[in-house]
Amino acid sequence: MTVRVGLIGLGTVGAEAARTLAAHAEMITARAGAPVVVTEVSARSRSKDRGIDISGMTWRDDPSQLAVSDNVDIVVELVGGEDGPALAAVEAALAAGKHVVTANKAMIARHGARLAALAEANGAQLAFEAAVAGGIPILKALKEGLAGNDVERVHGILNGTCNFILTEMLSTGRAFDDVLKEAQDLGYAEADPGFDIDGVDAAQKLAILSGIAFGAAPDIDAVEASGIRDVSALDIMFAKELGYRIRLLGVAAKSPTGVEQRVSACLVPETADLARIDGVTNAVMVDAEPVGQALLVGPGAGGGATASSVLADIIDIAAGRRAYAFGQEAASLGALTATPIADRAGAYYIRLNVIDQPGVIADVAGVLGQHGVSIKSVLQHGRDPNEAVPVVMTTHETTEAVIRDVANALSALEAAVEPPILMKIESF
Amino acid sequence: MTVRVGLIGLGTVGAEAARTLAAHAEMITARAGAPVVVTEVSARSRSKDRGIDISGMTWRDDPSQLAVSDNVDIVVELVGGEDGPALAAVEAALAAGKHVVTANKAMIARHGARLAALAEANGAQLAFEAAVAGGIPILKALKEGLAGNDVERVHGILNGTCNFILTEMLSTGRAFDDVLKEAQDLGYAEADPGFDIDGVDAAQKLAILSGIAFGAAPDIDAVEASGIRDVSALDIMFAKELGYRIRLLGVAAKSPTGVEQRVSACLVPETADLARIDGVTNAVMVDAEPVGQALLVGPGAGGGATASSVLADIIDIAAGRRAYAFGQEAASLGALTATPIADRAGAYYIRLNVIDQPGVIADVAGVLGQHGVSIKSVLQHGRDPNEAVPVVMTTHETTEAVIRDVANALSALEAAVEPPILMKIESF
Repeated sequence: MTVRVGLIGLGTVGAEAARTLAAHAEMITARAGAPVVVTEVSARSRSKDRGIDISGMTWRDDPSQLAVSDNVDIVVELVGGEDGPALAAVEAALAAGKHVVTANKAMIARHGARLAALAEANGAQLAFEAAVAGGIPILKALKEGLAGNDVERVHGILNGTCNFILTEMLSTGRAFDDVLKEAQDLGYAEADPGFDIDGVDAAQKLAILSGIAFGAAPDIDAVEASGIRDVSALDIMFAKELGYRIRLLGVAAKSPTGVEQRVSACLVPETADLARIDGVTNAVMVDAEPVGQALLVGPGAGGGATASSVLADIIDIAAGRRAYAFGQEAASLGALTATPIADRAGAYYIRLNVIDQPGVIADVAGVLGQHGVSIKSVLQHGRDPNEAVPVVMTTHETTEAVIRDVANALSALEAAVEPPILMKIESF
Repeated sequence: MTVRVGLIGLGTVGAEAARTLAAHAEMITARAGAPVVVTEVSARSRSKDRGIDISGMTWRDDPSQLAVSDNVDIVVELVGGEDGPALAAVEAALAAGKHVVTANKAMIARHGARLAALAEANGAQLAFEAAVAGGIPILKALKEGLAGNDVERVHGILNGTCNFILTEMLSTGRAFDDVLKEAQDLGYAEADPGFDIDGVDAAQKLAILSGIAFGAAPDIDAVEASGIRDVSALDIMFAKELGYRIRLLGVAAKSPTGVEQRVSACLVPETADLARIDGVTNAVMVDAEPVGQALLVGPGAGGGATASSVLADIIDIAAGRRAYAFGQEAASLGALTATPIADRAGAYYIRLNVIDQPGVIADVAGVLGQHGVSIKSVLQHGRDPNEAVPVVMTTHETTEAVIRDVANALSALEAAVEPPILMKIESF
């Protein structure tokens, strides 16, 4: 009983998945309990050399034809994109009762619950381990390995490009734009880098993690996402001086009044596990009861890592291991209520560029005092009378509601050159 | 269709598993696709207060009766012990076609392959996530989450007691015996600590990891295990001076000529991930193709962590997710050939107590030179003419075969007070 795979998309990941299925055929047969063979493929160019032999596979110009082929049991979608041909092919496959494996985080973060329901209605499986944190089997860990746990928080480093940039900025002291250029040259960042550096990619992953962790439909629109464009070399150095590292964190955390879903640049203590995750590596931490805290670390992108997760999903399906796409029946997935900003506690890092004149620190500190925010530290390096200089403060715990008011009040100060840079300090 | 669980053993883990099944009933029902209820229990004392209500459960004085009860679908064995009542109950349950979940590493490391075959022959499942690394879902990661990978090496910190002791020795400078006593007082170490500190516990876990990683029957006798009894405060401090931490590592590594399975105190660079795992935490690193390297970190022991893994196995079975105990059919599990010591490359730390007299360092260095071993560093602190002083060396890469000869030759030196302490330096 050979399990037949149809591959839509033969880029780095698709080619690596096909190569590995062939190279590890004997081992995979033993683990899946049946041979797993790629029978059909669809990609843009039929003639491109991808280092794999596709001569024995049926070529399909139209992915939607592959999706419903009688010669395919599992459709693997590696084209990407929230809608368009990827979504059309996945919908067609599920409607035809084909199992679907995908690495498409944009599609799952947007349409995941609906697709999960479609899969269930047609007796098919939908699996997307590769959509989150590359080679780290975090979705399986949440859905199965930690299934007895009530998850309190999932957070981590979900975008390798941003982590590479932040790591490089720290180790070299170079500016954001300069390091971004290097990341692009190295192939870590796209020519249009917004998807990574504005937090969109991490937000899609967080929406999926959050859905599974809290038994809810993923809702990309509920994730408050910002990126690292505004993180300056100055912030990196101030943070270091204060004993912190800056990381782009995705955080999904339950509180008595809701769930907070957020992607933002944060300060983490230099001794924290996540402060030590450098370069393009991803890391996801789960706080749950009764397990306590578990951390999974691994490569967040790249052909091998992503193919590893694609293969895991394929082998699960081939072995007959059924799992709900989001860990429980699609019909039971609820919607998450956002924790009100008045209930979001946290300490903050504030950098404000002000005109260097007598009394300015007192004015700035006064704003915090008026809002009941305790200052933990204030730094002002150098003097440049009547020119703009950065003043950095860290606060004790306050709330997001209060800190937004503080930011507005600081912006309104006469000495303020521009709105302050705010970053949350995450000490968990 | 309620899934009925019979609990054998109501210690910390058993009680916590029962408590969590009740406390998270709604969530677990959603994830398992059916209610999961403890219907029968067996333990030593019926009257002991464990903080859980067992009034609705059938009490069995004889665990083997519970094991074959018509009112039980999944037998959870939490008694422990390689043989005896635990093994008898598990064999009876599997023979009766009951699924078995266990945290019993001694039993699985010794009888795992036979029990897996018994389970398969009777259409039952055997699962033991809790047997290795407490709450970390590492067995599932190897069997399923990384199933498409060819594993090259699995290694990690598998015993929290030893890691706690080593961490404390470093941070306080105290001697082994002193810190062991503290660990016992804190409940981290048993009154008879040999199981932990002599590497037995870690060896059992490594045998299980190795079996799953390499598709082999676990073979506890094939694991070369030593512990941390001989690690002195002196070694901890010398290692620190050289930029290393000492960790008790379990290592299962494939080479062209076989598989090495070893538990031993090792030096790891202070910047390595495993050097930063402090206290009772466990960590397992997997090197595999195509994923690269993945690291899983979490609590290695304790009621909550172990119960988390027990529940994951129960929920998998309740959800109908079938998995081979060792990732593939029991009949297909082979035996591993040990890598010959001549093929085991590595650098070493050597501490030799010698009589402090002129020429002694030259004699010691001469032994290494005669065996073709390059010295990376030599440390001798203080002088104490004609008394015993420690000389510490680190070597460049050599083999285990050569270093054993070196150890014998060093022991034979006239100035040597006792055989040298040897530890491998692991830089992966």
